[in-house]
Amino acid sequence: MVTDRGRTFASDNWAGVHPDVMAAVVAANGYHAPSYGDDPVTRSAEELFRQHFGDDAEVFLAFNGTGANVIGLQSLLRPFEAVICAATAHINVDECGAPERFLGSKLLAVTTPDGKLTPELVARAVWGVGDEHHAQPRVVSITQSTEVGTCYTVDEVRALAEWAHGRDMWLHLDGARLSNACASLGVGLAAFGSSAGVDVLSYGGTKNGAMGAEAVVSFRPSEASGLRYIRKQSMQLASKLRFTAAQFTALLSDDLWLRNAQHANAMARRLAEGASAIPGVHVAFAVEANGVFAFLPPAVTEALQAEYPFYKSDVADGLVRWMASFDTTEEDVDSFIELIAEVMGELG
Amino acid sequence: MVTDRGRTFASDNWAGVHPDVMAAVVAANGYHAPSYGDDPVTRSAEELFRQHFGDDAEVFLAFNGTGANVIGLQSLLRPFEAVICAATAHINVDECGAPERFLGSKLLAVTTPDGKLTPELVARAVWGVGDEHHAQPRVVSITQSTEVGTCYTVDEVRALAEWAHGRDMWLHLDGARLSNACASLGVGLAAFGSSAGVDVLSYGGTKNGAMGAEAVVSFRPSEASGLRYIRKQSMQLASKLRFTAAQFTALLSDDLWLRNAQHANAMARRLAEGASAIPGVHVAFAVEANGVFAFLPPAVTEALQAEYPFYKSDVADGLVRWMASFDTTEEDVDSFIELIAEVMGELG
Amino acid sequence: MVTDRGRTFASDNWAGVHPDVMAAVVAANGYHAPSYGDDPVTRSAEELFRQHFGDDAEVFLAFNGTGANVIGLQSLLRPFEAVICAATAHINVDECGAPERFLGSKLLAVTTPDGKLTPELVARAVWGVGDEHHAQPRVVSITQSTEVGTCYTVDEVRALAEWAHGRDMWLHLDGARLSNACASLGVGLAAFGSSAGVDVLSYGGTKNGAMGAEAVVSFRPSEASGLRYIRKQSMQLASKLRFTAAQFTALLSDDLWLRNAQHANAMARRLAEGASAIPGVHVAFAVEANGVFAFLPPAVTEALQAEYPFYKSDVADGLVRWMASFDTTEEDVDSFIELIAEVMGELG
Amino acid sequence: MVTDRGRTFASDNWAGVHPDVMAAVVAANGYHAPSYGDDPVTRSAEELFRQHFGDDAEVFLAFNGTGANVIGLQSLLRPFEAVICAATAHINVDECGAPERFLGSKLLAVTTPDGKLTPELVARAVWGVGDEHHAQPRVVSITQSTEVGTCYTVDEVRALAEWAHGRDMWLHLDGARLSNACASLGVGLAAFGSSAGVDVLSYGGTKNGAMGAEAVVSFRPSEASGLRYIRKQSMQLASKLRFTAAQFTALLSDDLWLRNAQHANAMARRLAEGASAIPGVHVAFAVEANGVFAFLPPAVTEALQAEYPFYKSDVADGLVRWMASFDTTEEDVDSFIELIAEVMGELG
Repeated sequence: MVTDRGRTFASDNWAGVHPDVMAAVVAANGYHAPSYGDDPVTRSAEELFRQHFGDDAEVFLAFNGTGANVIGLQSLLRPFEAVICAATAHINVDECGAPERFLGSKLLAVTTPDGKLTPELVARAVWGVGDEHHAQPRVVSITQSTEVGTCYTVDEVRALAEWAHGRDMWLHLDGARLSNACASLGVGLAAFGSSAGVDVLSYGGTKNGAMGAEAVVSFRPSEASGLRYIRKQSMQLASKLRFTAAQFTALLSDDLWLRNAQHANAMARRLAEGASAIPGVHVAFAVEANGVFAFLPPAVTEALQAEYPFYKSDVADGLVRWMASFDTTEEDVDSFIELIAEVMGELG
Repeated sequence: MVTDRGRTFASDNWAGVHPDVMAAVVAANGYHAPSYGDDPVTRSAEELFRQHFGDDAEVFLAFNGTGANVIGLQSLLRPFEAVICAATAHINVDECGAPERFLGSKLLAVTTPDGKLTPELVARAVWGVGDEHHAQPRVVSITQSTEVGTCYTVDEVRALAEWAHGRDMWLHLDGARLSNACASLGVGLAAFGSSAGVDVLSYGGTKNGAMGAEAVVSFRPSEASGLRYIRKQSMQLASKLRFTAAQFTALLSDDLWLRNAQHANAMARRLAEGASAIPGVHVAFAVEANGVFAFLPPAVTEALQAEYPFYKSDVADGLVRWMASFDTTEEDVDSFIELIAEVMGELG
Repeated sequence: MVTDRGRTFASDNWAGVHPDVMAAVVAANGYHAPSYGDDPVTRSAEELFRQHFGDDAEVFLAFNGTGANVIGLQSLLRPFEAVICAATAHINVDECGAPERFLGSKLLAVTTPDGKLTPELVARAVWGVGDEHHAQPRVVSITQSTEVGTCYTVDEVRALAEWAHGRDMWLHLDGARLSNACASLGVGLAAFGSSAGVDVLSYGGTKNGAMGAEAVVSFRPSEASGLRYIRKQSMQLASKLRFTAAQFTALLSDDLWLRNAQHANAMARRLAEGASAIPGVHVAFAVEANGVFAFLPPAVTEALQAEYPFYKSDVADGLVRWMASFDTTEEDVDSFIELIAEVMGELG
Repeated sequence: MVTDRGRTFASDNWAGVHPDVMAAVVAANGYHAPSYGDDPVTRSAEELFRQHFGDDAEVFLAFNGTGANVIGLQSLLRPFEAVICAATAHINVDECGAPERFLGSKLLAVTTPDGKLTPELVARAVWGVGDEHHAQPRVVSITQSTEVGTCYTVDEVRALAEWAHGRDMWLHLDGARLSNACASLGVGLAAFGSSAGVDVLSYGGTKNGAMGAEAVVSFRPSEASGLRYIRKQSMQLASKLRFTAAQFTALLSDDLWLRNAQHANAMARRLAEGASAIPGVHVAFAVEANGVFAFLPPAVTEALQAEYPFYKSDVADGLVRWMASFDTTEEDVDSFIELIAEVMGELG
């Protein structure tokens, strides 16, 4: 049932590498260049980051999303301080405790209706300030787009930043799928940079057509952040960094980041629309990025998974997650909708 | 002065990617595959690792050498236990304190004449056993080939393993350049696996023609080592792992690992011979892998570096390091020797 | 309003030291003795611990409750493993993130109706087992008596231990007020040792009349637990340990631990009964140890606190906490009840 | 052979508690007082600290020396930064790796002739500044008096502070035996405070007649140091803090700290003079505090230890350590000298 190129809706990291990204990686080869980022490809990538995120952006390329989150957060807090995040946050449920381990800090996880924090929700988690027995809230961390496929508007992020900054706190943004959010909202990447009050963010390439390329973008002075050293000590500095950088030079040129994200988002919407029309399928969250979350009868989930791999969501019983990628086709979507309808007809 | 492709003797990580490795990366693209290693390319790589290192080898692919060392060591000791290593060890001087930070353990650094530990040297660092005030020695960590370009023989490693195992200690091997050592000694990779008493090793691809691919090879049962979880929590698990794995399927097929290493070693020997013949140049250590360490007058070093980048060594004043790569040519070597001779003639 | 000796219901750690404990401390003085526990007083204390907790008990004296909890837990899990505890647990809310910082582990906090975990509640927090992206549940940690003044029965603890052990997990017990629980239940301290399936516990002296004396009691072999080294590395080993030990020789002799706890419990019950009888005062949890939790109108709380210090509880809005101590008198209780009644009459 | 009160020269922490200190502890009992330091005894102690160390001194009482050192250092550096200390430093050899574990930082241990760092010695350990592969030197940590019984002069400390501050580094002082140094040098405690450029110090009570009382004295603003939270998270905050504080109110009143230290120092000098006069006994370091280090023939050491416990020193083969305490008597010294002479006569 799976397509001839194995395409499924399991995860956007099941997809391969966009051809333009691969071409850039290949083009970065064939010569010697200084290691650890002191090379022309990395400098080009950094320049592109500044073009997209603003001149005050400092960029530290990293290996993976967990790494980017952990080093970005490390630059913002001390071990006796705490991070407030949604209970559904990747840092809270999908990183095997890496944040606690490497920050030494407590995560204060907040239950949300839709994966999104608000000043009101954050405020409830902030207590014990000034009391040495309590981990001191210091960073609000949000995910854009969220782990349940919703997006913060620019105003929502700005409101959180203002709330945080007014309390001597920082705003961190896990942008593993920031491209999808920006594509969905019709704004540039800088919309979620310092102008929105974000202090440090992770920008993900991997889920948007890269091979394995993430970046920490910091809007604080590098002497204060210590990120150069944090990245190295946290084992996130590649020696042949140009091959990571090349992935970003491709993504950040000619709007490839945007086109990939727009396409994935459109495929998710197409899937959501088609699936919603099937009696018994209930789409759970607004489809604002490249993920669709739906409630299905357990027997249907099982039968579908047997033919077409995808994951159940941890968020609720009966909930499943379908992710679209840069290379998902309309045929992939339509044939999957057909399959869902068929199985629902039999077992739903 | 630098070659048209920028080749220098600065570091084997200034080289690019071997064409066969790049071809394997490209070939791993174009389709969806399960992430985090549950894909056919990773399985092939794991199978190749077992062919080379033995059936008892468990393999955990990682991003970089620091990461591979830190997660391998994590599987062997608790924070109140200590690692004994040479003072020159990469884990001691080149990882920004990552081992201390992520192991929580003390490194007991031992001064050596040639970058190599011996049971006698290790024994001097082992004291306070059973005394709760002292970090308890638990792991001996050696680097093969060493940071000063020398190699342990198989017997030397076995002697260290026996010494360690006789005291309820483990032997860890940092094999960032294990290929070079095996090429130099004329043995297979398994020679430094469990048959030599090594418990966990890092095997490096990056410095031998890969883009960025390292592996932890463990000879202990995975339930005991916990390496699956350690790798994830330590931020060393790639989502699109097949692209890391593909680099190893190339290196470990058709003896590419060996050919690359043999070539680099040969170029280093050629350089050492040529340089030794120049009056005033003193090669400091046996050239048993792909690195040459030489004493030069400071003015000569400076003049050479102005035309041809390379690093001074931390090991001693006046010492410089030259590294050969898989793509170093005889012309590169010969013209560099000529340059050295010329500068020595003027300033030496 | 506060008594002439300053006695309040703020906390059992506002009380001083029981005279017999102080006498034992004084008696331990006046001579030289080996440090770090190799002295006769410490040996006596250890012997008393074995008499009370069983011959399989290994004892490690520590400074404070946070320290005892953190080192006990350290002996049970690795950083990629998680601790399941009640959301109200001291380790979760009152230790400034020390567990996360020093274990490197995630705490999985479970909401409970009464501060008590059950196998059913724990089971809901156990998921993602075998999935490397999730911190692996490894320890169930309970508090006896709980932070809201309730007690586990022996059977309840045994059920949790069986549940945990059946899943290759451990049971940890924070017994900062274990004496109060045993006094309340009419059982000896060993009732919550290995016979109940507890693997490691903290036993608190400080809140029961000591000056500052806590102990980790482990029922696992010391080679496996590593507790000797963990205690030292975790900065919980006193040099003049005999003065900590002496506090326990007093408490564990002539049933002093029991008499102190029985008295404090009785005073709490007296207070609860008296307060309950006042219209508008609602006692929130079963008073099974030395703490009383009650809902009061905010204005009443404020007026009372102005005369008689005590704490609001984090557990719910409007909830206050009153703790009785070994030296609380019936007069203290009765005059406080009178005050509550008076203020309720005016402002309630 | 050991005295009737068990007095030996094994360690100053084998001694008990000075009667005045014990009296202060007893006097702090008998009433309720707020916990965690919000009590009158702690406030008195803090006031006395400011009288002795200067008005800019912020004081955080702690349990033990390892704890005080680790929390003081934590306030000064981040994990990617390093501490430079003497190879003989307590933090390097006697704390079971607690500094590495809880700072996450590297210790750069420097070999010294006499336990004392100098700007020249420190300078040699400072390299790789600005290079992300190296832990960045950030703190110079000295011990006063040193672990081999020598003292820094005020000028020597000031020179180190100036050197450090000129390089954006801090000066930490482990003053477990600061009283002995001040007594020896004839200066007040403030001589090694901010006027000498010390940024944070540990001040030890335990080895000078307390039961178990150490303090971190910081000359930096508390918002920057975070020490309130660091102390709690690092498990060094006592609930009934008044009983720690009382030990310091005794020591810091009526010059008790000074009298105890002067006496111990005098006893050490008497022992050194007597022992030096015995042929074959070689006193190794200047006796500037309360410790004597001497070279003895191994057989003599063994025979002496059989009658009178003391420790061999790790510093060199054949070296032994004898420590005098506040309660060492002239008779103790003289009879021990006699014994040494006797055994040397037989076996030397």
